[in-house]
Amino acid sequence: MAEAVETMDGWYCLHDLRSIDWTSWKMASSDEREAAIHEFEQLLSKWEAIEEAKDGSHAVYTVVGQKADIMMMFLRPTMVELNELETEFNKTKFAEYLKPAYSYVSVVELSKYAPQKEGVDPESLPETQARLKPILPKWEHMCFYPMDKRRQGENNWYTLEFSERGKMLYEHSKTGRKYAGRVKQIITGSFGFDDWEWGVTLFAHDVLQLKRIVYEMRFDEVSAKYGEFGEFFVGNHLPKENVAAYLHV
Amino acid sequence: MAEAVETMDGWYCLHDLRSIDWTSWKMASSDEREAAIHEFEQLLSKWEAIEEAKDGSHAVYTVVGQKADIMMMFLRPTMVELNELETEFNKTKFAEYLKPAYSYVSVVELSKYAPQKEGVDPESLPETQARLKPILPKWEHMCFYPMDKRRQGENNWYTLEFSERGKMLYEHSKTGRKYAGRVKQIITGSFGFDDWEWGVTLFAHDVLQLKRIVYEMRFDEVSAKYGEFGEFFVGNHLPKENVAAYLHV
Amino acid sequence: MAEAVETMDGWYCLHDLRSIDWTSWKMASSDEREAAIHEFEQLLSKWEAIEEAKDGSHAVYTVVGQKADIMMMFLRPTMVELNELETEFNKTKFAEYLKPAYSYVSVVELSKYAPQKEGVDPESLPETQARLKPILPKWEHMCFYPMDKRRQGENNWYTLEFSERGKMLYEHSKTGRKYAGRVKQIITGSFGFDDWEWGVTLFAHDVLQLKRIVYEMRFDEVSAKYGEFGEFFVGNHLPKENVAAYLHV
Amino acid sequence: MAEAVETMDGWYCLHDLRSIDWTSWKMASSDEREAAIHEFEQLLSKWEAIEEAKDGSHAVYTVVGQKADIMMMFLRPTMVELNELETEFNKTKFAEYLKPAYSYVSVVELSKYAPQKEGVDPESLPETQARLKPILPKWEHMCFYPMDKRRQGENNWYTLEFSERGKMLYEHSKTGRKYAGRVKQIITGSFGFDDWEWGVTLFAHDVLQLKRIVYEMRFDEVSAKYGEFGEFFVGNHLPKENVAAYLHV
Amino acid sequence: MAEAVETMDGWYCLHDLRSIDWTSWKMASSDEREAAIHEFEQLLSKWEAIEEAKDGSHAVYTVVGQKADIMMMFLRPTMVELNELETEFNKTKFAEYLKPAYSYVSVVELSKYAPQKEGVDPESLPETQARLKPILPKWEHMCFYPMDKRRQGENNWYTLEFSERGKMLYEHSKTGRKYAGRVKQIITGSFGFDDWEWGVTLFAHDVLQLKRIVYEMRFDEVSAKYGEFGEFFVGNHLPKENVAAYLHV
Repeated sequence: MAEAVETMDGWYCLHDLRSIDWTSWKMASSDEREAAIHEFEQLLSKWEAIEEAKDGSHAVYTVVGQKADIMMMFLRPTMVELNELETEFNKTKFAEYLKPAYSYVSVVELSKYAPQKEGVDPESLPETQARLKPILPKWEHMCFYPMDKRRQGENNWYTLEFSERGKMLYEHSKTGRKYAGRVKQIITGSFGFDDWEWGVTLFAHDVLQLKRIVYEMRFDEVSAKYGEFGEFFVGNHLPKENVAAYLHV
Repeated sequence: MAEAVETMDGWYCLHDLRSIDWTSWKMASSDEREAAIHEFEQLLSKWEAIEEAKDGSHAVYTVVGQKADIMMMFLRPTMVELNELETEFNKTKFAEYLKPAYSYVSVVELSKYAPQKEGVDPESLPETQARLKPILPKWEHMCFYPMDKRRQGENNWYTLEFSERGKMLYEHSKTGRKYAGRVKQIITGSFGFDDWEWGVTLFAHDVLQLKRIVYEMRFDEVSAKYGEFGEFFVGNHLPKENVAAYLHV
Repeated sequence: MAEAVETMDGWYCLHDLRSIDWTSWKMASSDEREAAIHEFEQLLSKWEAIEEAKDGSHAVYTVVGQKADIMMMFLRPTMVELNELETEFNKTKFAEYLKPAYSYVSVVELSKYAPQKEGVDPESLPETQARLKPILPKWEHMCFYPMDKRRQGENNWYTLEFSERGKMLYEHSKTGRKYAGRVKQIITGSFGFDDWEWGVTLFAHDVLQLKRIVYEMRFDEVSAKYGEFGEFFVGNHLPKENVAAYLHV
Repeated sequence: MAEAVETMDGWYCLHDLRSIDWTSWKMASSDEREAAIHEFEQLLSKWEAIEEAKDGSHAVYTVVGQKADIMMMFLRPTMVELNELETEFNKTKFAEYLKPAYSYVSVVELSKYAPQKEGVDPESLPETQARLKPILPKWEHMCFYPMDKRRQGENNWYTLEFSERGKMLYEHSKTGRKYAGRVKQIITGSFGFDDWEWGVTLFAHDVLQLKRIVYEMRFDEVSAKYGEFGEFFVGNHLPKENVAAYLHV
Repeated sequence: MAEAVETMDGWYCLHDLRSIDWTSWKMASSDEREAAIHEFEQLLSKWEAIEEAKDGSHAVYTVVGQKADIMMMFLRPTMVELNELETEFNKTKFAEYLKPAYSYVSVVELSKYAPQKEGVDPESLPETQARLKPILPKWEHMCFYPMDKRRQGENNWYTLEFSERGKMLYEHSKTGRKYAGRVKQIITGSFGFDDWEWGVTLFAHDVLQLKRIVYEMRFDEVSAKYGEFGEFFVGNHLPKENVAAYLHV
C-alpha cells in the first residue's frame, strides 16, 4: 500500500464565522452598542499585541453574501489557547449580537514531498519556521474553503504511490507559484480535527486573483481527479479602525 | 493535462434572496411599515441612479414558492461595493422584517473558447465591455441557478482537451442563440467566491421560455454529461412602483 | 447527441405545504381563531369560484406525519397569478399560525413522445386542453413527489435516442393505465422553476393504490434505471366544510 | 424487465418522534404539568382500549441520544385514522412542550416471494392476518430505521429477476429466523408515502440483539449489495405507569 | 457470501455534545448561575463515584470551534442507565442554558478477527473485560468521529472474505500500535443504535498525535478503500475543578 508522507505542523488554526443579528443590534441602546464595540476593539488590540510578540496571528474580514457577516481567522501555538480565545470571545457583549455561521479547526501544515537536503532537518530551517508560524497578511481580500482528497473507485489518492502523489503536487505547486506576490496561500491540515482533510486560506490584493487561481488549479491533475471541495467563503479586510463604522447603525 | 482557458471578468455580482416575516410585518405599526417602505424605495432610487450612471446594475423580483419572497441581483465594479451595498441594506428598517434565504457571490464572466481575431484584444471591444458590465433587463421573469462541471469517473470536464470543451460549448451556445430575444442569459463565475463554479441568470418575457431553454439545453452534450446543478429560483419582476402594493397588509 | 422532445405546457402549478403552530394557535383568543378560519374559508370560496369559471383549480389535503400539516396545490394560467395567490395567502390571519414546510413550482406538462396524427396539432385537441388545464379531483388521498431523470455513467437519460426514451415511456404509461379509475396522475415540469425536473401528483380513493402504483412503476425500466426521486408527501382530503373542525381546539 | 412482486398490506403505520422542550416544561406551573400528564395518560388509555379491541396498536419508547426524547409507533386500519390520531395528539397540552423530531408513514407489508400453496389465498390465512394487523410487543427495546433497495450501476434491485430477488430474500429471512424469540421484526412499506421504500422496526428484550441482528444481516447479499439505510433510532420502553415519573421535574 | 465475525460487547456508550447559549447564561442572575454550576458539579461528583465503583465511566471536554461547546462521553452497563443519565442531565438547571449539538449511541466493541487460543473464551479474560468496560483516560485532548465500512461497487467490505478483512484489520492495528502510549483508542459499535456503523474515540496528551494517527491510518488499505467518515469533533479536557472558571461570566 501507499505510504503516508510526514508532515511538519505549526500553529493551530481556527476559522470562526459569525452572522450579525442586525435587528437586535439596532434594538440595543447606543450605550450598549458603544460598550460592545469598545470591548471588541480592546480584544482586537490584545490580539495585535500577541501578533506583535509573534505568539500568534489573526485576521478579520467581512463576508460577502448571507453565509456570514464576519470571518475571523486565528493562529495560536496550542489548541488550548485557541479554545480559550474562542471562549473569551463568546463571553463578550458583542457576541450576544452574533449567531454562529461556520467554523473550522486545523493546524498549519507543510508536507515533505519535496526531496530533502541530506543531513538537514527541514523543520529546523528559519524559512520553514516562518511558514509554520505565519503572520497573516492583512491583504484586501480573503477566501477560505475546506477540501478532501478523493477516495473513490479509480481516483483514490490514498492508494497512489508516494512518487505519483509527489509529482502531481509538484505540478500543482507550479501553478501556485505563478501567483506569487498576488496570492498568499496557507494550507492547514484537519485530520482528526474537523470534517474535511485540509483547509485552504487565500489572501489577495485583487479579489479576481482568488477566482483565477482556484479556477486554474482545477485543471491540475491533482484537483481535476482527486480534489473534493466544501463551502467557499470570500470577504474583504476589516481593519480595526473601520469596525465602529461598519457596526454603526 | 488539460489547460485552463482564460476568462474575461466584469462586474461583481450578488444574488440576495430574502423571506418576508409577514407576521412581524403585520404586527408593526402602519407608520413603521410606511417608513420601512419609504426607506427601501429611496434605496431603490439610489440603485437606479447608479445604474443610470452605468456604475452598476440591479434587478428586483418576487419569488414563487416558499424558498424566498424577494430576489435581488446586484452588479458592482468591485467586491467592496457589493459588500457595502449588502451592509447598507442589512441596516435598513425593511431588513428587520426579512429573513436570509439564499445568496450567491460571483463575477460576470466571458470565456475565450471562441477563436480570437488576430491582433485584437477581445476585452477591449465595446461589445465585450457591454457584456461584462451589463445593465440587467427588467423583463417579466427571472431564473437563477448555480452549476458545476462534473469531475467524476469518465465525465471529467477538467481533464478534457481545450478543443473538446470548446466544441461542446459552441454547440451549447447554438441552443442558447435559438432563444435570442426571448431569453437573456448572464453567466457569472464563482470559483473561490461561492460553493458552485458558475451562476446562471436568465431573464424572459414569457416564463415558459425559461423552462424550455433549460430543458432543451439539458440534451446538449455539455449538460447531459458534465452539468451538475444546484437550487433553482424563479420570480416575477417587482418594479419600484409596485413595492408598496406588494407590501401592503 | 439526443434530441429534446417538444412539450405542451398548460397551467402553472404551486404545491404549498405548511405546518400549523398548534401552540400559538391555541394561545390565540377564540375570536381570533374564528376570524382566521372565516377568512380562510372565504379564500377557499374564492378559489372555488375560480375553479368553477375554469380559470384555475386547487386542492387542499391534510398531511400525515410531521413533514407538514396542510398541503395545498394550485393551478393558474400564469406564474404571476400563482405568485399573487401565494402572497394573498401569506397576508391572511391564518398564515400567521403557519410555518413554511415545503413548496414546489412547476407547470402542467404533456410530452410529444407518442406518434402524432398527421396534420393535427395535438395541442388544439379538446382532450389535450382538458389535460393541460385540469380540474383537480378531490379524491380522498393525494401524494406528491418531485423527480429527475438520471444523468450518471451508463444511465444517462439525456444521451438516449428519442426512440429509446419513447419506448420506455410507452411501457411506463402502460403500467399507469392499469390504474385507470383508481389513480389520477398529473405530471408537471419544473426545469428552470424548481430543484427537480418534474413533479408527480397522484390522487386516489384508496390510499393503498398510491403505494402500489409507485411500487409497481419502480420496476419499469425507465424508473429502475433512470428515476431519481425526492421527498414524498401523502395526505387526506380536507373539504372546506371540515376546515373548522380540523382547526378546532 | 423484472416484475414487481405482489404485496399484502395491513394496518397503516406512523412513527412519530418528538423532543421535549425541558426548559419550557420546567417553566410551566406544576398544575399545568399535571394536567398535561393526566391528559396524555388518558390518551394512552384510549389507545390501549383500541388495542384491546384489536382496532389498532401502539408503542411508546424513550429515545437514547439527542435525536428525540419520545418515539411513538401507531398502527391503524386507515390512513385517515392515523391522521386523526396525530391531530388529536397535536392538540393536547403535552404537545405544547414537544418539538417535532422525525416521523415516518408506511403500511405493514408482507411480500409474496415465498412459493404459495395452490388454491390458497395467503391473505385469507389467520396467521397472515395476524402478521398484517400485529399487536406491537411492549418489549424492553425498540429500533427503527428506513431503507431503500439500491438502483445504482451493477447493483440494481429493480432490474433483477424475481427468482434472484426471492432467493436473496429467503437467505436474508434465515438470518432473521436465527433471532426468533429474541428479536421481533415488523416490515412496513412506504412507496408513495414517505422518503424511503421501507421501514424496519425491531423489538428486543436485550438491546444487544438489535445490534447483532442488524450487523449480521449486513453480510447477507441482499443488504451487502442492495441495502441503503437511513437514520437509526433506538429507545427503551416507556410504560404508561412510568410516564409521570419520566416527566417529573 | 462473506460471514459476519462475532463481536464482544461491553458498556453502552453515549457521546453527548451541547452548545452553551452564552447570551441567556449571561442574562441569568449570578445566583441562578451559581446554583446551576453547583448542581452540575454535584452531578459530576455522582458520575465520579460511579466511576470509582467501576459501574461506568465518563469524560468531559470543551469543544474547539462552533460545532459545540461541551462534549461529554458516558459509559454505562445498560442502555437504560444511559437513558436515565441523559434524562437526569436534561432536567438540570444547567441544561436550560444548553442547546443540543450532536449525540451518538453505541456500545464498546471488540471483534474476534484475531486467532483465538484453543479452549479459551476470550471474553472471560481479565484484559478483555478491562477493554470492554474501560475507565476513560482524562488525557488532555479527545477526538470523536463515526464511520462506516463502504458497500459501493468494487469496494464492498461486506462481500469480502473473513480472511481478507482480518488481514487488513491486522495491518491497521499495527498502525494503531505505533501510537501506543500517545493515543488511546476506543471503538464502539452502533449497528441498530445510530446512523453510522462505528464510533471512534481517541485520547491524547499531545493533540497533534490525533491528527497524525488519523492521517497515517488513512493510507491503510482498510481506510483508503473501505473507510467512510462522518463529522469530527475535537476538544480539550475540562476537569471538574475548572468548570466554574470556564462558565464564569
